[in-house]
Parts: sequence; C-alpha cells; structure tokens
Amino acid sequence: MKVYKAHIIYTKQRERFEVLENGYIAVDEGRVQGIAAQREDLGCPNAEVVDFGNKLLIPAMNDMHVHAPQFHNQGIAMDLELLPWLENYTFPEETKFSNIDYAERIYRRFVYQLWKMGTMRAVTFATIHTESTRRLMELFKQAGMGAYVGKVAMNRNCPEALQEPVEEAVSGMLSLIEAYNNPQDLVRPIITPRFIPSCTPELLRACADIAQRYNLPVQSHLSENLGEIELVRQLEPDSDGYGDAYMRYGLFGQTPTIMAHCVWSDEKERLLMKEQGVLVAHCPTSNLNVASGMAPIRTYLNDGINVGLGSDVSGGHDISIFRMMVYAIQISKMHYQRNHALPFLSLSEAFWMATKAGGTFFGKVGSFEKGYDFDALVIDDNTLHPDEYTTLQRLERFIYIGDDRQIAHRFCQGKEIVLDSKQWE
Amino acid sequence: MKVYKAHIIYTKQRERFEVLENGYIAVDEGRVQGIAAQREDLGCPNAEVVDFGNKLLIPAMNDMHVHAPQFHNQGIAMDLELLPWLENYTFPEETKFSNIDYAERIYRRFVYQLWKMGTMRAVTFATIHTESTRRLMELFKQAGMGAYVGKVAMNRNCPEALQEPVEEAVSGMLSLIEAYNNPQDLVRPIITPRFIPSCTPELLRACADIAQRYNLPVQSHLSENLGEIELVRQLEPDSDGYGDAYMRYGLFGQTPTIMAHCVWSDEKERLLMKEQGVLVAHCPTSNLNVASGMAPIRTYLNDGINVGLGSDVSGGHDISIFRMMVYAIQISKMHYQRNHALPFLSLSEAFWMATKAGGTFFGKVGSFEKGYDFDALVIDDNTLHPDEYTTLQRLERFIYIGDDRQIAHRFCQGKEIVLDSKQWE
Repeated sequence: MKVYKAHIIYTKQRERFEVLENGYIAVDEGRVQGIAAQREDLGCPNAEVVDFGNKLLIPAMNDMHVHAPQFHNQGIAMDLELLPWLENYTFPEETKFSNIDYAERIYRRFVYQLWKMGTMRAVTFATIHTESTRRLMELFKQAGMGAYVGKVAMNRNCPEALQEPVEEAVSGMLSLIEAYNNPQDLVRPIITPRFIPSCTPELLRACADIAQRYNLPVQSHLSENLGEIELVRQLEPDSDGYGDAYMRYGLFGQTPTIMAHCVWSDEKERLLMKEQGVLVAHCPTSNLNVASGMAPIRTYLNDGINVGLGSDVSGGHDISIFRMMVYAIQISKMHYQRNHALPFLSLSEAFWMATKAGGTFFGKVGSFEKGYDFDALVIDDNTLHPDEYTTLQRLERFIYIGDDRQIAHRFCQGKEIVLDSKQWE
Repeated sequence: MKVYKAHIIYTKQRERFEVLENGYIAVDEGRVQGIAAQREDLGCPNAEVVDFGNKLLIPAMNDMHVHAPQFHNQGIAMDLELLPWLENYTFPEETKFSNIDYAERIYRRFVYQLWKMGTMRAVTFATIHTESTRRLMELFKQAGMGAYVGKVAMNRNCPEALQEPVEEAVSGMLSLIEAYNNPQDLVRPIITPRFIPSCTPELLRACADIAQRYNLPVQSHLSENLGEIELVRQLEPDSDGYGDAYMRYGLFGQTPTIMAHCVWSDEKERLLMKEQGVLVAHCPTSNLNVASGMAPIRTYLNDGINVGLGSDVSGGHDISIFRMMVYAIQISKMHYQRNHALPFLSLSEAFWMATKAGGTFFGKVGSFEKGYDFDALVIDDNTLHPDEYTTLQRLERFIYIGDDRQIAHRFCQGKEIVLDSKQWE
C-alpha cells in the first residue's frame, strides 16, 4: 500500500471536477483503495506517503483511436481529404510494415511519444502484418502501458501489398489471440476491420465470428467523410446506412465496439449506436486535417452515447490527448455558434471523455474512485506561475498551454512508468 | 557583413515556398543584401560565414493581433462567448494595469513568450493606461524586438475604471507619440480604438484626427461576433455596416489599418476593405475559443485582401504563430468541406500570411528577398528525425508538431535576440 499526496483532480461524472487540495489517495495492487481529503480518513495509517507537494495529480490519458504505423507521417501530408489521403500517403506508408525492423523502429518511437504525452492506454490500429503487430504488442508490454492493438483486416480497395486473403487474415488474428487473449493483461488484441470499403463481406463476417467466439472487442471507422459514406452506400445497397452495415455483419456492439469519427451519423445511426452501446472515438484534429467535418459531440452526449477522445495520428497531427480536449471544446463551440440549443463542451466534460469515458473500454480506468486502476499523471506546473491561479485554473492552463515538460510522473495500473529516450526515441 | 548558411525556406509569393538547401544569405546593417544557392554568387567573398549546418533558416513570425494585458488570462476563462467574456474576464483583468508594477510583471512575461515562440514583431493592444503602455514599449525596446503598441481608447460600455475621458485619452496618445513616433524605430505607436461599442463618436473622431495628423497606423476589431455586429448596427444606425462605420470616422484605411477577426464581413464590407487596403488579422484560435465563428480566409484572398495571422491572446490561448498556421489551414478546410469551390489554404499560404503578408505592416519584413529586414529563426529539428524527411517536410513537421525547443536562434533586424528567462519570465 502506498499513499500519494497532491492536489487531486478527476471527474466522477462529466458535469464537474472533483478537487481535493492536498488530498490523499491510497493505492495497492495497482488499484485505488481510497481517496480522502484527510490522511486519517484513508484508514491505512502505516502506509508510506509519497508527497507530491504543490503538484497536481490527475488520471492518465486514454487515446481511443490512433494508427501506430502512420506515426512516421505525423505532421506531414496535410494537403488531401480522406480517400485520396489514404491512397497517396497512408497506404504506401503502411506497406513498409511488412519489414519488422522498420516496424520496430517506428513503433518504438510511437510508444515513447504516447508515454511522453501522458497517454497510458491506447486503442491502436496496426497493419495487416501479423509479426509487426506482435512487435507492437511486445513494445507496449515492455513499456508497461495498456493497449488494445488491432491487426488490421483489409482485402480490397487498397494496394495489393495491403490485401490479405481471408484465411491468412484469420490465421494471423488467431495467432495473436492465442498469445495475448488474457483478460488480466494490459495489452490485448482487438478485432479491427479497417472500414467497410476495404473489407469484403467474407472478411467482415470472419472478423465478427472471431470477435464473438473469443468475446473480443471491435474497432473500426464510421461516417467520417461524405465521400466515404456514399461509397459504403454503393457497396452495401441492402443496408440501412453505414452503421447498419456493420450491424448486419455482427460488428456493431455485439461485442464492445469503438467507432472512430462519427462525424456524419444521422439520427437513425445514432439510435443504433445508443442501443448497441457503441463508443464513439472523437478525433477532432484529424476531422479538421483531412477535411471531414465537425462531429456534433453534444448531440451524442444528449443521446446518451459514450464518447472518448482519439488523436488519430497521422490524420491527426498531435498525439497529445490534452490537445484533443482543447480541439473537442473548440469544435463544440462552432456547433453552439450555429445553434445555441447545443451548449458547448465544458472543460470537465472534455476531461471526462479523455479519462473516465474512454477508460470504460479498459475496465475500471480513468477515475480515482475506489477500485479503479491507478493510471495517473503528476503535473508540475511550476513554470506556469501556479501560485497566481486556482487549482482548477492551473489544470486548465496546463491543458491549454502546457506540454510534456510539465508531466513529472506517469503511472499505469499503479506502477510508475519511466521510459528512457535513448532506448525508445 | 555576415553570411549565414543553412537550409533556407521562405515565401516570396503565397503559392509556393522558395527552398535553398545549403543556401547562403548575406546580411548587413540589419538587412538582407543577397541570397544565393552558391557562396560565390553572393558577391561578398570576404564576409564571415556562420554555418548553421543541417538546420533550417526561416523568416521570423509576425503576430498581427495580440492583447498584452490579457496575458495573465492565457489558457483560462474559456467558458463564455465574446461580449460576456469581455465583461467577466477581460475588462476586470485590464483594470489591473493602472498599477505599473503589475503591468511590468505581466508585460515582461508576455514579451518573453513572444520571443520564445519566435515572434519578432507584434501588433499589440495595451490598455488605456498611458504609463503602463509606455512600460510595454520600453520592454520591447529593451528586448530589441519590433512592435506596434496601442494605448487603447475606450470610454463607454465597459467598467468605469476603463473609461477615459476623451481629452485624457488624447493627451495620453500624444505623449506616447511624442516619445516614440520615429519611423526608424522598431517600437512604434499605433492608434487603437478598442472597437465601436466601447468608443463614443467623439473618441473615434479624435483617434482618426491623431492618426491622420501623425500618419500613424490604426488597429481595431471588426465583425468578430454576430451579437457585436448587431450592437454596432444599433449604435451606428446611419452607417452601412460595421466597416463603413469605421470608414465614416476616418479609421478604415485612411492610414494603414489592421482589423482583427473579420469573421462575418459581408461582400460590401470586404469590397470596402479591399478598396481601403485594410489588412485582416486572422485569429483562428480565438475565433474558436470565444465561439465567434470561422473566418472565410480563402474568400478574402480571392478578393485581393491582405491577411496576416494573430494569436489574439487571451481570446486565443496559444501565442505561437506556428500554431496559428495550423489552425488557419484547419478552419479553411471546414469552409472547403462545405464548398469545394473554396480550396483550403496550403502550407505556403499560411506561412506567407505569418511572414511576408503580415510583415508588410512593418516595412520590408517577412521575406529574405534583397532589402528585407533580416528577421529570422534558426530551427534545429534534430529531435524530429530530420534525415528521414525532405526539407519542406521538415518545416511542415516543425510547424505541426514542434515547439520552442526547436528554435535555436532568433534574429530581429539583423541582431540576434537572446532573452534570459530569469530576467524575463
């Protein structure tokens, strides 16, 4: 048992922050055992106290949608919208991951950058390449960070080098499932059909079969771009929309499901998402960069749909989930500007999406309530003049204008994670 | 005469970058004397060569709209739109600048942050307080950086403590003009009526008189928010719109004029801006944060209107003009998404706005063409794996994912500017 003392901030519910100035949190076996304003209320008088002084202690970030093999393209190739962007930049880069040495090099940097920015859990796409994907899973394990990693299923409308026959796709998935499908582990497989345009019906059905057989979660892309939606309509003429197409294949909430983007989901699709418990990975930066549009997140929340945040590197250029909070709020303000009946997101709502809402996908993650995994960041904002601001303003300033330089410690499931840039970058 | 060697990138025209890998630039008396791909083509064989090796050399940033006295609010108070935001956060903060010691403390930090982010020239609002404004001008001088600094004129629709009688406003302006109106200097006054809602007609006329008498530039706010526009319509019923109201007072291009925001300027207003040579300070981050809207910059460029970039701290939370380029491109993509006849901004266009387009306001600033002031940044992107990218991709990555840690040297008018954080922060 250890007790950490700091100015503790987290969100139990999205409407407001819980703030414990000079509060205490007891951690044992990776989990929060208690949290209290007074030391004596914790009920573990003999536990060692680690005092973080004037620093802030907050839950770590969860990135609900990110493409590890696009990491080398981070910050470049911003001159096309989604479909030509995939064809010209993304697919060519992903073909390189047939080479495990290349994968190792890029994936190492990728895991390091997640760590650096305070993201302790990520739901990532890899590529079709089974052994490179395994390497990524090993790197997450080595780092001690949490991840769902998806070997990508795709077999049409992409370069031949990225098309994998269904049987090979299935045997690759099964090989990773055999090695990693342990519910206790921090690093686990996720079934990952890229999106309907790049998967034949046979492949989509195979993905659904495996997900249901092994009770594994599913991730994919949904209603990101109007051209993409039209393409899906042509490919799936019998379906009642894009979400319904996934639904018919068994990939829409039959097991826990994340759908990235959902910029253009209509009322019918949103209703299906709500009924099926689909989690939206909102990727505001990416949606701007590849000119997709602005997802109406207030509408999703009003509908009772769960929403987390995703960096979507490299459609998104920024891997910091703190920056995603800022962008999510900004985009919600553009919806509000047009329609004042849609209040823009508050900081606590954005924070909740980045921590507790996304965290539900990993178990009890993203809060400091009793029983939650202790995934945490210690924020040292001494360069941001902390004494001149309230505790919540200090958090707001760190989110808006801070960066990795203020992240002093990072914990995942109770363990402090320290990565050496020389080995990882 | 000095010669600098590096990978040189700049924009002569907005459509494309000029790139000289291992190029040379000759600087004397603060100005570019020549630029060439080969050393011998410079024609100054005896000049000392400073070799920046594999680093990038680019023009420094120009911030065309920023509020120095709002710097303490940077990164907080993001929960209101423009008019209540002014009332609840901004005006109360600005009243503190009656205290010169407070002003000194905040202005010092402000100048330091501009420097840190590579902004060598800024067009700033101060407050109504003459002596605090003088202090800000002195700090810019002390730093060796370029600035237009505006003592703000306002006398209605704001707290009494921020209302200055017209005669006092005039005598304050004249006192600063007397001290600083030297066209050779880097730090100069600019006539700064806050915006029509906060100035009586008498005050607006007085501002125009002074601007024209001393041939001084003017800055103000224009068509930022729909509520504000409606308020101006009520206050100026005889005018044919917001821009026309400034025009009638003599504050719209009669001398060089910057108007910040211009989110909602209609065709008539844009035509007037074009005719009067008004420069738009586009502040994309601020426009999102205070829920104003998205300025249609492609339309302005198509109309032949000059556009620079502004951080607009603290409506904008980010003082980096590099980040403004990213936001400007992203917002233009949302216009493009709705109307493909409005191509989104390219990186060279955003860079041109941040350098040469804004720089026109300071003289020959923002390019490396012969005769331009040598305002420059040396970018050391060694942590961003430069060897794996083209020179232009390196610049793009620095803009999208870099920060002050990559800015190795900063020059303003030929002089390297080095500020010590201990003295300034």
